[in-house]
Amino acid sequence: MSFLLSELATRFDLGLKGFPEAEIRTVASLQDAGKGDISFCTGRHHFSELEETKATAVILHPNISEQYQGNALLSENPLLAFSKIARLLHPEGRKPAGIHPSSLVHAEAFIHETACVAENVIIEKSVKIAAGCEIGAGSFLGEDTVIGEDTVLKNNITLHHKTVVGKDCILHSGCVIGSDGFGHAHEEGHWLPIPQLGKVVIGNDVRIGANTAIDRGTLGDTLIGNGVKIDNLVHIAHNVRIGDDTAIAACTGIAGSVNIGKRCTLAGQVGVVDNISICDDAHFTGQTAVRSNITDPGVYSSGVLLEETHSWLKNATRFKQLNLLFKQVRDLIKNRTDEAGSGQ
Amino acid sequence: MSFLLSELATRFDLGLKGFPEAEIRTVASLQDAGKGDISFCTGRHHFSELEETKATAVILHPNISEQYQGNALLSENPLLAFSKIARLLHPEGRKPAGIHPSSLVHAEAFIHETACVAENVIIEKSVKIAAGCEIGAGSFLGEDTVIGEDTVLKNNITLHHKTVVGKDCILHSGCVIGSDGFGHAHEEGHWLPIPQLGKVVIGNDVRIGANTAIDRGTLGDTLIGNGVKIDNLVHIAHNVRIGDDTAIAACTGIAGSVNIGKRCTLAGQVGVVDNISICDDAHFTGQTAVRSNITDPGVYSSGVLLEETHSWLKNATRFKQLNLLFKQVRDLIKNRTDEAGSGQ
Amino acid sequence: MSFLLSELATRFDLGLKGFPEAEIRTVASLQDAGKGDISFCTGRHHFSELEETKATAVILHPNISEQYQGNALLSENPLLAFSKIARLLHPEGRKPAGIHPSSLVHAEAFIHETACVAENVIIEKSVKIAAGCEIGAGSFLGEDTVIGEDTVLKNNITLHHKTVVGKDCILHSGCVIGSDGFGHAHEEGHWLPIPQLGKVVIGNDVRIGANTAIDRGTLGDTLIGNGVKIDNLVHIAHNVRIGDDTAIAACTGIAGSVNIGKRCTLAGQVGVVDNISICDDAHFTGQTAVRSNITDPGVYSSGVLLEETHSWLKNATRFKQLNLLFKQVRDLIKNRTDEAGSGQ
Repeated sequence: MSFLLSELATRFDLGLKGFPEAEIRTVASLQDAGKGDISFCTGRHHFSELEETKATAVILHPNISEQYQGNALLSENPLLAFSKIARLLHPEGRKPAGIHPSSLVHAEAFIHETACVAENVIIEKSVKIAAGCEIGAGSFLGEDTVIGEDTVLKNNITLHHKTVVGKDCILHSGCVIGSDGFGHAHEEGHWLPIPQLGKVVIGNDVRIGANTAIDRGTLGDTLIGNGVKIDNLVHIAHNVRIGDDTAIAACTGIAGSVNIGKRCTLAGQVGVVDNISICDDAHFTGQTAVRSNITDPGVYSSGVLLEETHSWLKNATRFKQLNLLFKQVRDLIKNRTDEAGSGQ
Repeated sequence: MSFLLSELATRFDLGLKGFPEAEIRTVASLQDAGKGDISFCTGRHHFSELEETKATAVILHPNISEQYQGNALLSENPLLAFSKIARLLHPEGRKPAGIHPSSLVHAEAFIHETACVAENVIIEKSVKIAAGCEIGAGSFLGEDTVIGEDTVLKNNITLHHKTVVGKDCILHSGCVIGSDGFGHAHEEGHWLPIPQLGKVVIGNDVRIGANTAIDRGTLGDTLIGNGVKIDNLVHIAHNVRIGDDTAIAACTGIAGSVNIGKRCTLAGQVGVVDNISICDDAHFTGQTAVRSNITDPGVYSSGVLLEETHSWLKNATRFKQLNLLFKQVRDLIKNRTDEAGSGQ
Repeated sequence: MSFLLSELATRFDLGLKGFPEAEIRTVASLQDAGKGDISFCTGRHHFSELEETKATAVILHPNISEQYQGNALLSENPLLAFSKIARLLHPEGRKPAGIHPSSLVHAEAFIHETACVAENVIIEKSVKIAAGCEIGAGSFLGEDTVIGEDTVLKNNITLHHKTVVGKDCILHSGCVIGSDGFGHAHEEGHWLPIPQLGKVVIGNDVRIGANTAIDRGTLGDTLIGNGVKIDNLVHIAHNVRIGDDTAIAACTGIAGSVNIGKRCTLAGQVGVVDNISICDDAHFTGQTAVRSNITDPGVYSSGVLLEETHSWLKNATRFKQLNLLFKQVRDLIKNRTDEAGSGQ
């Protein structure tokens, strides 16, 4: 498959600089690109690579188009333009429709004739799989699971009973959806599990990362909104609700009954304590501990900065006397003020 | 299945307020409850929901029973009472006994006739599965694995050779038990793996979360006590020992040869360095880094509080000068004292 | 299998103290060792166990050989010597060559006749598995995957298409290699996934832990160098490059396009932000947040020290006023200096 540069410009409504007939076949990074490749440059820190690239064309922001003398497509959002062109040039291969004979499908399950069920899949009673779905090898779909159109499940995935997944989703390998919430009542020093009677409901256009775990609700459901993107090894506890278009990076843990708004971003290893609410458009940098409600949009952080362990240990030790230090300084200031007063 | 409110009161030894003949069929949250539902209220922050609930009955602490005019069961521990009633009304469906023909069971394995082995399970030589167990689809049980009575393994679980699991346990999907410990000797700049010759021994009534990993011991065993509850995506390294009734929340990592006492709680994302001991009844809030022995029961934390990134960065930068600041303040105090002394 | 102590000394070039004819059959810890066992002691903190051990022989550093009157092998690196002896006495059982009939192998895949493919493995088109490999039950190998000689895959592993694994590697159960990178372009408030066109290339002698996830590159590849050791539940994002002999402990998360040098060590729960570089021989203690380039070898940390929650909260609250405190102290110092100046 190949396109003329002018065809790409027209199709994605981009500006064009240079030779319109240049033929584009694949995408590549600035360093690796050669003849037939289109690449992209998102900013100043890539100018040296831009200078040396052998790409047939580059996608650039109009503001920096002067930096580059070769063929270019111009976009206010070069990454987005690149992403669309990459999807055009490298369409994802879909597996052919049909159920592999090694898979075990319950007689009362419904699988659309255009769906693909790969090897060694287990599909229990009353499961519904819509048109265009792909269910990867080794996956398990518990009773009453429902999968919307064109959703892809990769390999060795577990969806527990009653899980609902919307359309156009992608669930990566090893994820577990609908495991029991971690809820226990205390009884004479022991923990008695609380029955977990809810389910997990996932919207449309959602991405779930590899080996991520999402627990079912205790009463009521765990809800993942439309357009939510979740990275690898993320934990989402029972009854969490995540608003549309929120993105959650790897190794983040969200405790029970947390409400997260729309368009939030949680960077890697963020932790959120149970039973709090986070408003729309709140953003958290990596490893931030969110211990209370967030009511204002903004960017939030916690933690301290890395330093050499030798000096860090001194500072970290001092941290335990920080409140004391504040008192000492307050006294010093008070004394000064008293003196200044008495000196007058 | 349904019960009269008075039957529930008698069976679980609870106080009763209101109409004893009220018929209870299911449990629900205060918001979602309707006719035939019983709900519960654990405290003040749910009073507004309590006021508006349409539940047929609510479980309450006697201290707050005045807050509610409807039918109520009274308990010192409403969550526990709720949990017991929920288990009664919504008993877990057990799968029928038998070995699915797609599973591969070694001729020298023993599987009790009342146990259920689901689809595509691999059971190696000398495995022993006791009465009432359920082994979920896609799981692998290595040689000499032993599973106690009524233990449930969910799906796509891996138990490596010689793992011992007690009775009444539940292991959630995707967990890996008995993987090699991360132990290496240094040899001329390279890492030589140390053979991991021990195993994992799990007590009775233990819960292991989805995609959690527990490594086998290097010499001697990794030991998980009775009643221990472990959440999703937890890492437990070689030769860790965890005392009875300790609970460990998601994304926590425990390094090698750590000893944790009884009845401890570790919240989410806690980290514990290797070769330390934690006494009984120690509790750790989320993301706490435990870097040395804990010898006294209590509640422990580390980390700093979240704030807007803009101001956080200023404070976090200052942290690196904290020890210096202490010296400056010490000098200021010393100077003051000297002056005060010389002034006399 | 058994060896005389003198045979072990000769084979591994170790000093010998005591009875050369002592017969050694197994390894054990100092506490558990008995007749026929060899153990080891790495330092002072094990002297009490050394005193009481019933081991037939102990491996010691020459510096501490005076501490022990029994049979001993002497080594500058007792752990390394122990590790080699353990490997000799307890060789890993390899599974017999051959493809289990339950596995589904594509007609155009190549599997060396000395390799073992266990139960329920799925092997897609053009996969190549070299001599001496072991592919554990329930694993999935996508199209064009290549596995080098004597590499072992444990159970329920997913290798996505085009993954390359070197020789002598071990991949632990549940790991996912080659999942899509977490890359999205922003389009009117929604996230559009960027096609992930690269792959994962893993060197020789690499260890990947249980339930670890390594994403494929977006453009270009994710590269894991020779001799790299990765623990359980680690996340490695798209286009990360890890230098030879670096070791990464459990629950660590490494964001996209990070470059890590050779011989680094990252302890548990370390987090590394995207697009930074870490030089060779850099070491990070547990939970360290690495937010910028590391250009000098050394040991680095972040975080604060644990304390009782009651006092911690006071100090953590004060942290938010830390920059203010610095200003106050600067003013106090300035005032003092001014006074001292004016006093002269």
